[in-house]
Amino acid sequence: MPIAKKPTAVHRKATRKPRKRRAPGRPAAASPELRPRLLDAALACYVREGIAATTLRAIAREAGVTPALLHYYFGDAVQLRQAVVAERVLPVVDGFRSMLPLDGGLAELIAAFVAGIAALVGAHPWFPALWVREVLCEGGALREIVLRQFAPQIPQALAARFVRAQREGVLASGLDPRLLVVSLMGLTLFPAASAPIWRSFFASDDIDASVLREHTMALLDRGLGLGGKP
Amino acid sequence: MPIAKKPTAVHRKATRKPRKRRAPGRPAAASPELRPRLLDAALACYVREGIAATTLRAIAREAGVTPALLHYYFGDAVQLRQAVVAERVLPVVDGFRSMLPLDGGLAELIAAFVAGIAALVGAHPWFPALWVREVLCEGGALREIVLRQFAPQIPQALAARFVRAQREGVLASGLDPRLLVVSLMGLTLFPAASAPIWRSFFASDDIDASVLREHTMALLDRGLGLGGKP
Repeated sequence: MPIAKKPTAVHRKATRKPRKRRAPGRPAAASPELRPRLLDAALACYVREGIAATTLRAIAREAGVTPALLHYYFGDAVQLRQAVVAERVLPVVDGFRSMLPLDGGLAELIAAFVAGIAALVGAHPWFPALWVREVLCEGGALREIVLRQFAPQIPQALAARFVRAQREGVLASGLDPRLLVVSLMGLTLFPAASAPIWRSFFASDDIDASVLREHTMALLDRGLGLGGKP
Repeated sequence: MPIAKKPTAVHRKATRKPRKRRAPGRPAAASPELRPRLLDAALACYVREGIAATTLRAIAREAGVTPALLHYYFGDAVQLRQAVVAERVLPVVDGFRSMLPLDGGLAELIAAFVAGIAALVGAHPWFPALWVREVLCEGGALREIVLRQFAPQIPQALAARFVRAQREGVLASGLDPRLLVVSLMGLTLFPAASAPIWRSFFASDDIDASVLREHTMALLDRGLGLGGKP
């Protein structure tokens, strides 16, 4: 497989010999499939090592290309990170958001939240660990952008919906609508993120996504006063 | 304030002049209050920067002493970390564990768990962030020791208690006893750890420890089938 040379070196040191001519600035390894593969490699490094600890060199090694090729496609490390966030991370959160029927019934909304996180984790198993390290951890590299982008659309919209449900008498009155958003995260994304831990001290081969979902819905239906008798 | 010299240098280069004689190997700054202060400084660095990223030099700077003094008291960085874990972190978890009435009623146990985490967080505000970074994060430096030390005593003991409660018909049957342990963490320590996030997108000056506790107990009493009508 041809490995790209550093573009500047290619330009300056290009000899007169006409072998392997390329368009200026376009490394030999460039191809339509390469860009998504580079984003995936960057994401894999971010998940494994943390964003702050990941160098362009490590991502290049992961992808089997030169750092120069990454520069060619994305510019610097900050721009590469922005591309990964925009094209790999935010679409996942946005897909979850789009599944929430904020204008429907409360029971449907709660069930959709629980099912939505399960679907997200099932489709993107890397997400919970990235969320812990880069959002939940103090100093996490994605905290600001995730909050700026999604705070009004998800937590604030949910809390407003819960306020309305409480006013209509559909949601138990002892609950705080804002803390209920936190509780939902603590009962869905947190169990996914902590699974490597609790699976290490519980025999839990029988716990799959549907067992987790049933448990969570049993707790929530009753806990929120949605599901009939306690 | 006297700053300790490197102990070996003190020994080898000690001149014959009798000024400021000290016991061999005992730096000038040594005092009964110093050791706990060094442990606190190390903990502060661990919480702020993460254990892996914290150098002896940074801890020395935090404490206003020389790295040599840290060596004198604790040996190397690994031994210092072990001392901080043994004398600062594990006692906190152990204190929480000792508050759980595992042989009492289920409702009391649940209430004690919720109150116990609230008390822990109130007394040790640094704990949730350290837990996220060093236990919940993949590769966290304290995951192994916390699990080895406390898995049988807390999660496994709780799950066994919940199995018994379910057998006795005291705990709602739709719940999984093991996942209930995870749910309890997700409804107590997780909200504490994520407070800087949710407080940034909710107006929440009115949410203090007692509001959080009431919300959580309202959700759990009903959710577990303990607390009467929904």
